[in-house]
Amino acid sequence: MEPVERVVRHFQEELEQAKTRLLEMGGLAEENVRLAVKGMVDRDQSLIDRVLHGDTPLNSLHIEIDNRCFTLLALYQPMAADLRTIVAAFKINTDLERVGDLAVNIAEAARRYASHPPVKKLIDIPRMASIAQTMLRDSLDAFVRRDMALAQHVLNEDDRLDSLKTQIFRELLTYMLQDPSTIEPALDLILISRHLERIGDHATNVAEDVIFIISARDVRHHASDASQP
Amino acid sequence: MEPVERVVRHFQEELEQAKTRLLEMGGLAEENVRLAVKGMVDRDQSLIDRVLHGDTPLNSLHIEIDNRCFTLLALYQPMAADLRTIVAAFKINTDLERVGDLAVNIAEAARRYASHPPVKKLIDIPRMASIAQTMLRDSLDAFVRRDMALAQHVLNEDDRLDSLKTQIFRELLTYMLQDPSTIEPALDLILISRHLERIGDHATNVAEDVIFIISARDVRHHASDASQP
Repeated sequence: MEPVERVVRHFQEELEQAKTRLLEMGGLAEENVRLAVKGMVDRDQSLIDRVLHGDTPLNSLHIEIDNRCFTLLALYQPMAADLRTIVAAFKINTDLERVGDLAVNIAEAARRYASHPPVKKLIDIPRMASIAQTMLRDSLDAFVRRDMALAQHVLNEDDRLDSLKTQIFRELLTYMLQDPSTIEPALDLILISRHLERIGDHATNVAEDVIFIISARDVRHHASDASQP
Repeated sequence: MEPVERVVRHFQEELEQAKTRLLEMGGLAEENVRLAVKGMVDRDQSLIDRVLHGDTPLNSLHIEIDNRCFTLLALYQPMAADLRTIVAAFKINTDLERVGDLAVNIAEAARRYASHPPVKKLIDIPRMASIAQTMLRDSLDAFVRRDMALAQHVLNEDDRLDSLKTQIFRELLTYMLQDPSTIEPALDLILISRHLERIGDHATNVAEDVIFIISARDVRHHASDASQP
Protein backbone atom coordinates (compact mmCIF):
# COMPACT_ATOMS: atom_id res chain seq x y z
CA MET A 1 0.00 0.00 0.00
CA GLU A 2 1.27 3.48 -0.90
CA PRO A 3 1.83 5.96 1.96
CA VAL A 4 -0.91 8.23 0.66
CA GLU A 5 -3.41 5.36 0.61
CA ARG A 6 -2.40 4.46 4.14
CA VAL A 7 -3.05 8.02 5.33
CA VAL A 8 -6.43 8.04 3.59
CA ARG A 9 -7.35 4.73 5.19
CA HIS A 10 -6.32 5.92 8.64
CA PHE A 11 -8.31 9.09 8.17
CA GLN A 12 -11.45 7.19 7.15
CA GLU A 13 -11.06 4.76 10.06
CA GLU A 14 -10.67 7.57 12.56
CA LEU A 15 -13.57 9.50 11.06
CA GLU A 16 -15.72 6.36 11.42
CA GLN A 17 -14.67 6.10 15.06
CA ALA A 18 -15.67 9.71 15.69
CA LYS A 19 -19.07 9.02 14.07
CA THR A 20 -19.53 5.89 16.19
CA ARG A 21 -18.84 7.89 19.34
CA LEU A 22 -21.34 10.55 18.21
CA LEU A 23 -24.00 7.86 17.77
CA GLU A 24 -23.16 6.50 21.20
CA MET A 25 -23.54 9.98 22.65
CA GLY A 26 -26.86 10.44 20.83
CA GLY A 27 -28.07 7.15 22.29
CA LEU A 28 -27.11 8.19 25.83
CA ALA A 29 -28.75 11.62 25.45
CA GLU A 30 -31.95 10.08 24.07
CA GLU A 31 -32.03 7.50 26.86
CA ASN A 32 -31.69 10.24 29.49
CA VAL A 33 -34.62 12.13 27.96
CA ARG A 34 -36.69 8.92 27.99
CA LEU A 35 -35.80 8.17 31.64
CA ALA A 36 -36.52 11.74 32.79
CA VAL A 37 -39.98 11.76 31.18
CA LYS A 38 -40.76 8.23 32.38
CA GLY A 39 -39.62 9.25 35.87
CA MET A 40 -42.04 12.18 35.72
CA VAL A 41 -45.01 10.17 34.41
CA ASP A 42 -44.48 7.25 36.84
CA ARG A 43 -43.41 9.58 39.69
CA ASP A 44 -40.37 7.33 40.04
CA GLN A 45 -37.67 9.11 42.04
CA SER A 46 -34.99 6.49 41.27
CA LEU A 47 -35.31 7.12 37.51
CA ILE A 48 -35.20 10.88 38.08
CA ASP A 49 -32.07 10.49 40.23
CA ARG A 50 -30.39 8.40 37.53
CA VAL A 51 -30.73 11.31 35.11
CA LEU A 52 -29.76 13.95 37.69
CA HIS A 53 -26.53 12.14 38.54
CA GLY A 54 -25.90 10.39 35.22
CA ASP A 55 -24.49 13.01 32.86
CA THR A 56 -20.80 12.28 33.49
CA PRO A 57 -20.48 9.77 30.59
CA LEU A 58 -22.11 12.30 28.26
CA ASN A 59 -19.77 15.07 29.35
CA SER A 60 -16.71 12.83 28.89
CA LEU A 61 -17.90 11.78 25.42
CA HIS A 62 -18.48 15.42 24.51
CA ILE A 63 -14.86 16.29 25.26
CA GLU A 64 -13.54 13.09 23.64
CA ILE A 65 -15.45 13.69 20.38
CA ASP A 66 -14.33 17.32 20.25
CA ASN A 67 -10.71 16.17 20.66
CA ARG A 68 -11.12 13.49 17.98
CA CYS A 69 -12.50 16.01 15.49
CA PHE A 70 -9.78 18.50 16.34
CA THR A 71 -7.08 15.86 15.83
CA LEU A 72 -8.61 14.83 12.49
CA LEU A 73 -8.41 18.45 11.30
CA ALA A 74 -4.88 18.96 12.59
CA LEU A 75 -3.38 15.70 11.29
CA TYR A 76 -5.11 15.13 7.97
CA GLN A 77 -6.24 18.56 6.78
CA PRO A 78 -9.26 17.05 5.02
CA MET A 79 -11.02 18.71 2.08
CA ALA A 80 -14.54 19.06 0.65
CA ALA A 81 -17.09 16.54 1.96
CA ASP A 82 -14.72 15.18 4.64
CA LEU A 83 -14.07 18.69 5.94
CA ARG A 84 -17.80 19.41 5.95
CA THR A 85 -18.41 16.18 7.87
CA ILE A 86 -15.92 17.13 10.59
CA VAL A 87 -17.22 20.69 10.93
CA ALA A 88 -20.73 19.21 11.20
CA ALA A 89 -19.52 16.67 13.78
CA PHE A 90 -18.30 19.53 16.02
CA LYS A 91 -21.74 21.11 15.81
CA ILE A 92 -23.68 17.88 16.28
CA ASN A 93 -21.54 17.15 19.33
CA THR A 94 -22.55 20.49 20.85
CA ASP A 95 -26.22 19.84 20.07
CA LEU A 96 -26.12 16.41 21.71
CA GLU A 97 -24.46 17.80 24.81
CA ARG A 98 -27.28 20.36 25.11
CA VAL A 99 -29.85 17.57 24.75
CA GLY A 100 -28.15 15.88 27.70
CA ASP A 101 -28.38 19.14 29.68
CA LEU A 102 -32.07 19.42 28.78
CA ALA A 103 -32.68 15.86 30.04
CA VAL A 104 -31.20 17.03 33.38
CA ASN A 105 -33.47 20.11 33.30
CA ILE A 106 -36.49 17.85 32.69
CA ALA A 107 -35.43 15.63 35.60
CA GLU A 108 -35.12 18.69 37.89
CA ALA A 109 -38.64 19.82 36.96
CA ALA A 110 -39.90 16.22 37.33
CA ARG A 111 -38.47 16.05 40.86
CA ARG A 112 -40.33 19.24 41.83
CA TYR A 113 -43.48 18.03 40.04
CA ALA A 114 -43.44 14.77 42.02
CA SER A 115 -43.63 16.73 45.29
CA HIS A 116 -47.14 17.98 44.38
CA PRO A 117 -50.36 16.06 43.66
CA PRO A 118 -50.62 15.38 39.89
CA VAL A 119 -52.34 18.21 37.98
CA LYS A 120 -53.81 15.91 35.32
CA LYS A 121 -53.21 12.66 33.47
CA LEU A 122 -50.15 13.27 31.31
CA ILE A 123 -50.77 12.46 27.65
CA ASP A 124 -49.36 15.27 25.52
CA ILE A 125 -45.99 15.51 27.29
CA PRO A 126 -45.13 11.81 26.69
CA ARG A 127 -46.28 12.37 23.09
CA MET A 128 -43.94 15.36 22.75
CA ALA A 129 -41.11 13.31 24.29
CA SER A 130 -41.69 10.49 21.83
CA ILE A 131 -41.65 12.87 18.83
CA ALA A 132 -38.50 14.64 20.08
CA GLN A 133 -36.69 11.33 20.69
CA THR A 134 -37.63 10.03 17.24
CA MET A 135 -36.47 13.29 15.63
CA LEU A 136 -33.14 12.98 17.42
CA ARG A 137 -32.65 9.34 16.41
CA ASP A 138 -33.69 10.03 12.79
CA SER A 139 -31.37 13.02 12.52
CA LEU A 140 -28.40 10.91 13.66
CA ASP A 141 -29.39 8.04 11.33
CA ALA A 142 -29.54 10.58 8.52
CA PHE A 143 -26.03 11.76 9.49
CA VAL A 144 -24.54 8.27 9.45
CA ARG A 145 -26.34 7.07 6.30
CA ARG A 146 -26.10 10.48 4.57
CA ASP A 147 -29.84 10.24 4.05
CA MET A 148 -31.19 13.52 2.68
CA ALA A 149 -34.86 12.43 2.67
CA LEU A 150 -34.71 11.44 6.35
CA ALA A 151 -33.06 14.76 7.24
CA GLN A 152 -35.87 16.63 5.45
CA HIS A 153 -38.41 14.49 7.32
CA VAL A 154 -36.90 15.60 10.66
CA LEU A 155 -37.29 19.26 9.63
CA ASN A 156 -40.99 18.65 8.90
CA GLU A 157 -41.65 17.08 12.32
CA ASP A 158 -40.72 20.24 14.20
CA ASP A 159 -44.13 21.86 13.65
CA ARG A 160 -45.88 19.03 15.50
CA LEU A 161 -43.84 19.75 18.62
CA ASP A 162 -44.65 23.42 18.39
CA SER A 163 -48.43 22.81 18.19
CA LEU A 164 -48.33 20.36 21.11
CA LYS A 165 -46.40 22.86 23.22
CA THR A 166 -49.02 25.58 22.56
CA GLN A 167 -51.86 23.14 23.30
CA ILE A 168 -50.24 22.05 26.60
CA PHE A 169 -49.77 25.67 27.61
CA ARG A 170 -53.42 26.61 26.96
CA GLU A 171 -54.76 23.60 28.82
CA LEU A 172 -52.52 24.14 31.86
CA LEU A 173 -53.40 27.82 32.00
CA THR A 174 -57.09 26.82 32.47
CA TYR A 175 -56.12 24.59 35.40
CA MET A 176 -54.03 27.33 37.01
CA LEU A 177 -56.80 29.93 36.70
CA GLN A 178 -59.37 27.57 38.24
CA ASP A 179 -57.25 26.25 41.09
CA PRO A 180 -54.20 28.16 42.41
CA SER A 181 -52.88 24.98 44.09
CA THR A 182 -52.02 23.71 40.59
CA ILE A 183 -49.88 26.77 39.73
CA GLU A 184 -46.54 25.41 40.92
CA PRO A 185 -46.78 21.91 39.41
CA ALA A 186 -48.36 23.25 36.19
CA LEU A 187 -45.41 25.64 35.79
CA ASP A 188 -43.08 22.64 35.82
CA LEU A 189 -45.13 20.90 33.13
CA ILE A 190 -44.95 24.06 31.01
CA LEU A 191 -41.17 24.16 31.47
CA ILE A 192 -40.86 20.47 30.56
CA SER A 193 -42.84 21.01 27.36
CA ARG A 194 -40.43 23.82 26.46
CA HIS A 195 -37.40 21.65 27.18
CA LEU A 196 -38.84 18.98 24.86
CA GLU A 197 -39.44 21.57 22.16
CA ARG A 198 -35.79 22.60 22.44
CA ILE A 199 -34.68 18.98 22.06
CA GLY A 200 -36.62 19.02 18.78
CA ASP A 201 -34.74 22.21 17.84
CA HIS A 202 -31.42 20.44 18.41
CA ALA A 203 -32.56 17.50 16.23
CA THR A 204 -33.47 20.09 13.59
CA ASN A 205 -29.96 21.57 13.83
CA VAL A 206 -28.47 18.11 13.27
CA ALA A 207 -30.74 17.53 10.24
CA GLU A 208 -29.65 20.90 8.79
CA ASP A 209 -26.00 19.91 9.26
CA VAL A 210 -26.68 16.65 7.39
CA ILE A 211 -28.15 18.57 4.45
CA PHE A 212 -25.08 20.82 4.52
CA ILE A 213 -22.72 17.82 4.40
CA ILE A 214 -24.52 16.11 1.53
CA SER A 215 -25.38 19.08 -0.64
CA ALA A 216 -22.90 21.74 0.52
CA ARG A 217 -26.09 23.81 0.72
CA ASP A 218 -26.93 25.86 3.78
CA VAL A 219 -30.60 25.46 4.71
CA ARG A 220 -30.47 27.34 7.99
CA HIS A 221 -32.68 30.39 8.31
CA HIS A 222 -34.76 29.03 5.40
CA ALA A 223 -36.59 26.32 7.33
CA SER A 224 -39.87 27.06 5.55
CA ASP A 225 -38.29 26.51 2.11
CA ALA A 226 -36.27 23.55 3.28
CA SER A 227 -39.29 21.77 4.71
CA GLN A 228 -40.95 21.51 1.30
CA PRO A 229 -40.81 17.94 -0.02
CA MET B 1 7.96 38.79 0.00
CA GLU B 2 8.24 34.99 -0.17
CA PRO B 3 5.16 33.01 -1.25
CA VAL B 4 4.87 31.37 2.18
CA GLU B 5 4.92 34.74 3.91
CA ARG B 6 2.25 35.98 1.54
CA VAL B 7 0.01 33.01 2.37
CA VAL B 8 0.53 33.58 6.10
CA ARG B 9 -0.30 37.26 5.72
CA HIS B 10 -3.45 36.49 3.76
CA PHE B 11 -4.49 33.95 6.33
CA GLN B 12 -4.02 36.39 9.23
CA GLU B 13 -5.90 39.12 7.36
CA GLU B 14 -8.81 36.83 6.63
CA LEU B 15 -8.85 35.51 10.18
CA GLU B 16 -9.00 39.12 11.42
CA GLN B 17 -11.93 39.76 9.09
CA ALA B 18 -13.79 36.74 10.45
CA LYS B 19 -13.15 38.00 14.01
CA THR B 20 -14.39 41.48 13.09
CA ARG B 21 -17.60 39.98 11.68
CA LEU B 22 -18.05 37.94 14.87
CA LEU B 23 -17.74 41.12 16.95
CA GLU B 24 -20.26 42.81 14.69
CA MET B 25 -22.63 39.90 15.17
CA GLY B 26 -22.12 40.01 18.94
CA GLY B 27 -22.92 43.73 18.90
CA LEU B 28 -26.15 43.13 16.94
CA ALA B 29 -27.23 40.28 19.22
CA GLU B 30 -26.54 42.33 22.35
CA GLU B 31 -28.42 45.32 20.92
CA ASN B 32 -31.44 43.13 20.18
CA VAL B 33 -31.46 41.86 23.76
CA ARG B 34 -31.25 45.44 25.02
CA LEU B 35 -34.11 46.59 22.76
CA ALA B 36 -36.34 43.63 23.66
CA VAL B 37 -35.94 44.23 27.40
CA LYS B 38 -36.33 48.01 27.02
CA GLY B 39 -39.46 47.37 24.90
CA MET B 40 -40.85 45.25 27.73
CA VAL B 41 -40.02 47.69 30.54
CA ASP B 42 -41.27 50.78 28.62
CA ARG B 43 -44.18 48.82 27.04
CA ASP B 44 -42.95 50.20 23.71
CA GLN B 45 -44.43 48.16 20.85
CA SER B 46 -42.20 49.77 18.21
CA LEU B 47 -39.03 48.56 19.98
CA ILE B 48 -40.53 45.09 20.38
CA ASP B 49 -41.42 45.01 16.67
CA ARG B 50 -37.89 46.04 15.72
CA VAL B 51 -36.55 42.93 17.46
CA LEU B 52 -39.31 40.66 16.13
CA HIS B 53 -38.60 41.65 12.54
CA GLY B 54 -34.93 42.52 12.85
CA ASP B 55 -33.05 39.21 12.90
CA THR B 56 -32.29 39.03 9.15
CA PRO B 57 -28.87 40.78 9.45
CA LEU B 58 -27.92 38.38 12.26
CA ASN B 59 -28.94 35.33 10.24
CA SER B 60 -26.98 36.55 7.20
CA LEU B 61 -23.90 37.21 9.34
CA HIS B 62 -24.22 33.76 10.91
CA ILE B 63 -24.03 32.10 7.47
CA GLU B 64 -21.29 34.45 6.27
CA ILE B 65 -19.06 33.79 9.30
CA ASP B 66 -19.57 30.04 9.01
CA ASN B 67 -18.52 30.23 5.34
CA ARG B 68 -15.48 32.37 6.17
CA CYS B 69 -14.31 29.90 8.82
CA PHE B 70 -14.92 26.98 6.50
CA THR B 71 -12.92 28.65 3.72
CA LEU B 72 -10.06 29.41 6.13
CA LEU B 73 -9.87 25.71 7.07
CA ALA B 74 -10.10 24.53 3.46
CA LEU B 75 -7.58 26.96 1.96
CA TYR B 76 -4.94 27.34 4.65
CA GLN B 77 -5.11 24.17 6.75
CA PRO B 78 -4.03 26.08 9.86
CA MET B 79 -2.34 24.43 12.84
CA ALA B 80 -2.20 24.80 16.63
CA ALA B 81 -3.51 28.09 18.02
CA ASP B 82 -4.87 29.24 14.63
CA LEU B 83 -6.80 26.00 14.23
CA ARG B 84 -8.17 26.31 17.77
CA THR B 85 -9.23 29.90 17.02
CA ILE B 86 -11.19 28.83 13.93
CA VAL B 87 -12.86 25.89 15.66
CA ALA B 88 -13.79 28.28 18.49
CA ALA B 89 -15.09 30.84 15.96
CA PHE B 90 -17.54 28.23 14.58
CA LYS B 91 -18.83 27.61 18.09
CA ILE B 92 -18.98 31.28 19.09
CA ASN B 93 -20.89 31.98 15.87
CA THR B 94 -23.51 29.37 16.89
CA ASP B 95 -23.74 30.83 20.40
CA LEU B 96 -24.28 34.35 19.08
CA GLU B 97 -26.98 33.16 16.69
CA ARG B 98 -28.81 31.56 19.63
CA VAL B 99 -28.52 34.82 21.59
CA GLY B 100 -30.23 36.52 18.64
CA ASP B 101 -32.99 33.87 18.76
CA LEU B 102 -33.38 34.43 22.50
CA ALA B 103 -33.76 38.18 21.93
CA VAL B 104 -36.67 37.32 19.60
CA ASN B 105 -38.13 35.00 22.26
CA ILE B 106 -37.89 37.83 24.82
CA ALA B 107 -39.62 40.19 22.38
CA GLU B 108 -42.44 37.64 21.84
CA ALA B 109 -42.97 37.35 25.60
CA ALA B 110 -42.73 41.16 25.93
CA ARG B 111 -45.47 41.59 23.32
CA ARG B 112 -47.79 39.27 25.25
CA TYR B 113 -46.79 40.92 28.55
CA ALA B 114 -47.71 44.37 27.18
CA SER B 115 -51.29 43.17 26.53
CA HIS B 116 -51.88 42.77 30.30
CA PRO B 117 -51.68 45.32 33.14
CA PRO B 118 -48.16 45.30 34.64
CA VAL B 119 -47.69 42.76 37.43
CA LYS B 120 -45.11 44.81 39.30
CA LYS B 121 -42.37 47.36 38.83
CA LEU B 122 -39.61 45.58 36.94
CA ILE B 123 -36.25 45.82 38.68
CA ASP B 124 -34.62 42.39 38.69
CA ILE B 125 -35.26 41.60 35.02
CA PRO B 126 -33.46 44.74 33.75
CA ARG B 127 -30.68 43.85 36.21
CA MET B 128 -30.44 40.32 34.76
CA ALA B 129 -30.42 41.79 31.25
CA SER B 130 -27.61 44.15 32.14
CA ILE B 131 -25.50 41.34 33.63
CA ALA B 132 -26.13 39.05 30.63
CA GLN B 133 -25.25 41.81 28.13
CA THR B 134 -22.05 42.63 30.00
CA MET B 135 -21.08 38.94 30.14
CA LEU B 136 -21.61 38.67 26.38
CA ARG B 137 -19.56 41.80 25.63
CA ASP B 138 -16.77 40.75 28.02
CA SER B 139 -16.61 37.24 26.56
CA LEU B 140 -16.16 38.65 23.04
CA ASP B 141 -13.58 41.19 24.25
CA ALA B 142 -11.74 38.30 25.89
CA PHE B 143 -11.86 36.42 22.55
CA VAL B 144 -10.42 39.31 20.55
CA ARG B 145 -7.79 40.34 23.10
CA ARG B 146 -7.04 36.73 24.17
CA ASP B 147 -7.65 37.87 27.73
CA MET B 148 -7.70 34.88 30.07
CA ALA B 149 -8.55 36.90 33.21
CA LEU B 150 -11.58 38.48 31.55
CA ALA B 151 -12.79 35.06 30.35
CA GLN B 152 -12.53 33.73 33.91
CA HIS B 153 -14.43 36.79 35.15
CA VAL B 154 -17.31 35.94 32.78
CA LEU B 155 -17.48 32.40 34.20
CA ASN B 156 -17.78 33.85 37.71
CA GLU B 157 -20.68 36.13 36.79
CA ASP B 158 -22.98 33.25 35.84
CA ASP B 159 -23.95 32.54 39.47
CA ARG B 160 -25.43 36.03 39.86
CA LEU B 161 -27.83 35.38 36.99
CA ASP B 162 -28.87 32.08 38.51
CA SER B 163 -29.69 33.65 41.92
CA LEU B 164 -31.65 36.48 40.31
CA LYS B 165 -33.66 33.98 38.24
CA THR B 166 -34.59 32.00 41.39
CA GLN B 167 -35.50 35.21 43.26
CA ILE B 168 -37.71 36.43 40.38
CA PHE B 169 -39.47 33.05 40.25
CA ARG B 170 -40.25 33.04 44.00
CA GLU B 171 -41.54 36.58 43.97
CA LEU B 172 -43.78 36.05 40.92
CA LEU B 173 -45.17 32.84 42.38
CA THR B 174 -46.46 34.86 45.36
CA TYR B 175 -48.25 37.26 43.00
CA MET B 176 -49.82 34.41 41.03
CA LEU B 177 -51.06 32.64 44.16
CA GLN B 178 -52.64 35.86 45.50
CA ASP B 179 -54.24 37.06 42.27
CA PRO B 180 -55.00 34.69 39.37
CA SER B 181 -55.27 37.64 36.97
CA THR B 182 -51.47 37.96 37.21
CA ILE B 183 -50.84 34.33 36.15
CA GLU B 184 -50.52 34.94 32.42
CA PRO B 185 -48.28 38.04 32.53
CA ALA B 186 -46.21 36.57 35.40
CA LEU B 187 -45.56 33.46 33.28
CA ASP B 188 -44.06 35.66 30.59
CA LEU B 189 -41.79 37.37 33.11
CA ILE B 190 -40.64 33.93 34.32
CA LEU B 191 -39.92 32.91 30.71
CA ILE B 192 -38.01 36.14 30.07
CA SER B 193 -35.84 35.57 33.15
CA ARG B 194 -35.02 32.08 31.80
CA HIS B 195 -34.16 33.45 28.36
CA LEU B 196 -31.78 35.93 30.03
CA GLU B 197 -30.19 33.14 32.03
CA ARG B 198 -29.59 31.23 28.80
CA ILE B 199 -27.94 34.29 27.24
CA GLY B 200 -25.55 34.17 30.21
CA ASP B 201 -24.96 30.47 29.43
CA HIS B 202 -23.99 31.35 25.87
CA ALA B 203 -21.56 34.02 27.14
CA THR B 204 -20.13 31.33 29.42
CA ASN B 205 -19.67 29.03 26.41
CA VAL B 206 -17.77 31.80 24.60
CA ALA B 207 -15.56 32.37 27.66
CA GLU B 208 -14.80 28.64 27.83
CA ASP B 209 -13.83 28.67 24.15
CA VAL B 210 -11.47 31.60 24.82
CA ILE B 211 -9.75 29.63 27.59
CA PHE B 212 -9.46 26.68 25.19
CA ILE B 213 -7.82 28.86 22.52
CA ILE B 214 -5.30 30.43 24.89
CA SER B 215 -4.37 27.46 27.02
CA ALA B 216 -5.38 24.47 24.83
CA ARG B 217 -7.10 23.42 28.06
CA ASP B 218 -10.70 22.29 28.09
CA VAL B 219 -12.57 23.83 31.04
CA ARG B 220 -16.02 22.62 30.07
CA HIS B 221 -17.80 20.41 32.58
CA HIS B 222 -15.44 21.71 35.26
CA ALA B 223 -17.02 25.11 35.75
CA SER B 224 -16.61 24.97 39.53
CA ASP B 225 -12.85 24.44 39.24
CA ALA B 226 -12.50 26.95 36.45
CA SER B 227 -14.33 29.68 38.31
CA GLN B 228 -11.71 29.79 41.07
CA PRO B 229 -9.62 32.95 40.79
